[in-house]
Amino acid sequence: MEKRIAILPGDGVGKEVSRGAVTILQAVAELFNHKFHFTYGEIGGAAIDEFGTPLPERTLDLCKASDAVLLGAVGGPKWDKLPGHIRPEKGLLKIRKELGLYANVRPVQYYSSISGISPLRKEVVEGVDMVMVRELTGGLYFGKPSERSVQKGEASVVDTLFYQKNEIERVIRYAFELAAIRKGKVTSVDKANVLESSRMWRETAEEVAKDYPDVQLDHMLVDNAAMQLIKNPRQFDVLVTENMFGDILSDEASVLTGSLGMLPSASVSAAGPYLYEPIHGSAPDIAGMNAANPIAMILSAAMMLRLSFDLDDEAEAIENAVEQVLDAGSRTRDIALFGTPFLTTEGMVEEIKAA
Amino acid sequence: MEKRIAILPGDGVGKEVSRGAVTILQAVAELFNHKFHFTYGEIGGAAIDEFGTPLPERTLDLCKASDAVLLGAVGGPKWDKLPGHIRPEKGLLKIRKELGLYANVRPVQYYSSISGISPLRKEVVEGVDMVMVRELTGGLYFGKPSERSVQKGEASVVDTLFYQKNEIERVIRYAFELAAIRKGKVTSVDKANVLESSRMWRETAEEVAKDYPDVQLDHMLVDNAAMQLIKNPRQFDVLVTENMFGDILSDEASVLTGSLGMLPSASVSAAGPYLYEPIHGSAPDIAGMNAANPIAMILSAAMMLRLSFDLDDEAEAIENAVEQVLDAGSRTRDIALFGTPFLTTEGMVEEIKAA
Ligand SMILES: CC(C)[C@H](C(=O)O)[C@@H](O)C(=O)O
Ligand SMILES: CC(C)[C@H](C(=O)O)[C@@H](O)C(=O)O
Repeated sequence: MEKRIAILPGDGVGKEVSRGAVTILQAVAELFNHKFHFTYGEIGGAAIDEFGTPLPERTLDLCKASDAVLLGAVGGPKWDKLPGHIRPEKGLLKIRKELGLYANVRPVQYYSSISGISPLRKEVVEGVDMVMVRELTGGLYFGKPSERSVQKGEASVVDTLFYQKNEIERVIRYAFELAAIRKGKVTSVDKANVLESSRMWRETAEEVAKDYPDVQLDHMLVDNAAMQLIKNPRQFDVLVTENMFGDILSDEASVLTGSLGMLPSASVSAAGPYLYEPIHGSAPDIAGMNAANPIAMILSAAMMLRLSFDLDDEAEAIENAVEQVLDAGSRTRDIALFGTPFLTTEGMVEEIKAA
Repeated sequence: MEKRIAILPGDGVGKEVSRGAVTILQAVAELFNHKFHFTYGEIGGAAIDEFGTPLPERTLDLCKASDAVLLGAVGGPKWDKLPGHIRPEKGLLKIRKELGLYANVRPVQYYSSISGISPLRKEVVEGVDMVMVRELTGGLYFGKPSERSVQKGEASVVDTLFYQKNEIERVIRYAFELAAIRKGKVTSVDKANVLESSRMWRETAEEVAKDYPDVQLDHMLVDNAAMQLIKNPRQFDVLVTENMFGDILSDEASVLTGSLGMLPSASVSAAGPYLYEPIHGSAPDIAGMNAANPIAMILSAAMMLRLSFDLDDEAEAIENAVEQVLDAGSRTRDIALFGTPFLTTEGMVEEIKAA
C-alpha cells in the first residue's frame, strides 16, 4: 500500500513526538511492505514565526493532498500575547473547519501496567474502556456574533452557540456507528433543562437511535456527566456531546487513567483526510528536553493506520508493542512512579520500535 | 436576634432535609436565645401541582419579605415531560434571577472521617479546602435569542452567551473578597483562547485584582481546570467562573471528597435575602424513605447563620456538631462504607441536635 501522510509537528514537544511517530511508521512500512510518503508542514507558533499566520495556505494544501494528517501540538508562551486572530490555537480551529473535521474521537483506556499513576482509586478506574466523541466544528467555537458592544451605556459581550440540525445529526450518527461495533451503548450529554440547542440535540439523538435498534441510548445532563466520569467511569461506552461540553469532559476523562501522555485522538470528516493527534498539548516546560512521552502520538499513528488506511494488523502491531513495552516496565517520566527510573522520548521510541 | 426565614422544601428529599434543618435551627434558637420565624412556600414540582407554575408570585413575595431563604431541592420524573417553561427547574432559574442571586458559593471540604468514600486516592484529596464561586444570573442560561429557526432550508438552533461587564466584575470581586479572608488565591477559569466573553472575563479579573494586592490571581482554561480538579485539587483556594462552566466544574468538584450529600451552598445578591441550598438534587429514588443525608441542608443553614445573620458562634456550633457526629462514626447510607450500618434522615438529625 502506498500512502501520503502530512506531518504537522507544530510547537514544543510536538516536534519530538512527531519524530517518534514517523520512526515507528517507517518500521511498520518496512515490516509490512508499505510505502508511506511523509511531507512536512507548519502549523501554530512555528507557522506564525515563519509565515505570520498559524495556518498557511501551503499547509492546508498539503493536508488536502494527503491521505491522512498527523499533528503534534500547538502553542506556547512565546505566542500568548499575540492578538486573537494570529494565536497558534487559531491554526487548530481553522484546520478543523477547513478539513470539515466534525467529530473528535478519543478512546480512554485503562492500562493495568500503569494503574499506580491514576488519581482515582483502582476499584473505580479498573477496566475503563470508553470513547469520547466530541462535535468539533460547531457550537460556541464558531457561532457569530462573538464580539463586544456597548448596550445602554454598559460594556457587553456575546458569544453564540449555533448548530444546524444536520451538524448535530452526523456526529451523533458517528457515535452510534462506533457503539454498534463496541459495547452497544451511547450516552448523549446535554443541558436540555436549560439550553434550546440541547433540547434539539436530545431530540436528534432520539431520532438517530431509531436506526440503531441494537444500541442503547441514554441521556445525561452535562453537570451530572462531570460527576459520573469520576464516580463511575466504567458505566460509559461511547459518550457523545457538543463542542464546548466535549472540550471540558474529554479533558476530564483523559485524567482518569492517569495516562494523559498516552491518549491518542482522531478527528474525522465526511470525505477525508482525517487528522490524528495526541490529546496532550505542546508542554513548553519540557520542550526540547527529550523527555516527552511519545506514546500518545504513536498510538495516534496506529489509529490512523486503522481508521484511514484499514490496516488493522499494522495498527495492532503498534498497540501490542506499546503494551509489551509498558508491561516490561519501561516508562517515560510522566508515567513513572516517583523515584523510579525512566526513559527519554527517543529511548521509549526505540523500545517500541524494537518490540 | 429575631429573623424571618423562608423555607422552600421543594420536591423529593427536599422536604425531608428541610425538616431536618428546621429542627436544628430551632435547637440553635433555643440554645442561643434567638427567635427564628419560619414561613413555608412552594417551588418546583410542588408548586406546579398546586399553582400550575414552578415559582408562584406568593413564594417570591414570601422570599422578598424574609431575611434569608432555605431551599430543599426541585424536580422529579413526574414533571419531566412538561413543556420547558413550566418545568420545576424554571422555578430555580427564576428565583435566582428575581432575587438577583449573582454568585453561587460552594465550599468543598475534605472530611477525614469519611475519606473512605471518595473515588480519588487519599493522597490526592486529603486536605482539600476550596470554594467554588459560580456566576449565577448570566451567560448561556439567560441570553437571548435561545430559539430554533430555519436558515437556508436547514433547521437550526441558537443559544446566547451574554454578559455585561459589570455582571462579570461583581462576581469576580466577590471571589476576591472571599480569598482575602481565606488562603489569598483566586483561580479565574475561562476559555479565553476561544471565547470573546472569556477574554473580557480575563481582563476584568486582571482589573479587579489591582484592588487586592494581597490576593494572587491565576487564570486557568476551563478544560485544564476540569483536569486539575482531579489531578491536584489541593492547589485551589477560590475558583471563580461563569455560569455554565461553573455548573459543570462545581458538580465535578463536589464528587472529589465523596460527600455530595454533605455539601452546602449559598447564593448571594447585592441587597439580600440570600438563598441557601444543599448541592444535591431531589433524589426521587429515595424520596420519602427517610434515607437522605440531611447534612448538606443543615450545613446550608449554618452558612445562612454566618453569612446572612453574622451569627458565627451559632454556625460553628452546628458545624462542630456535624463533625463530632461524623467522627463518632454516625453515617447515613450515602456516606456509609458498603456493608456498614447507617442512620435514617431523622436519626442523623437527632444525633446532630444532641451534639
Ligand atoms: C487549543 C484549544 C482551542 C483546543 C480546543 O478547545 O478545542 C484544545 O483545548 C483542544 O481540546 O483541542
Ligand atoms: C437544575 C439546573 C437548572 C441547575 C443549573 O444548571 O443551574 C442545577 O444543575 C444547579 O446547578 O443548580
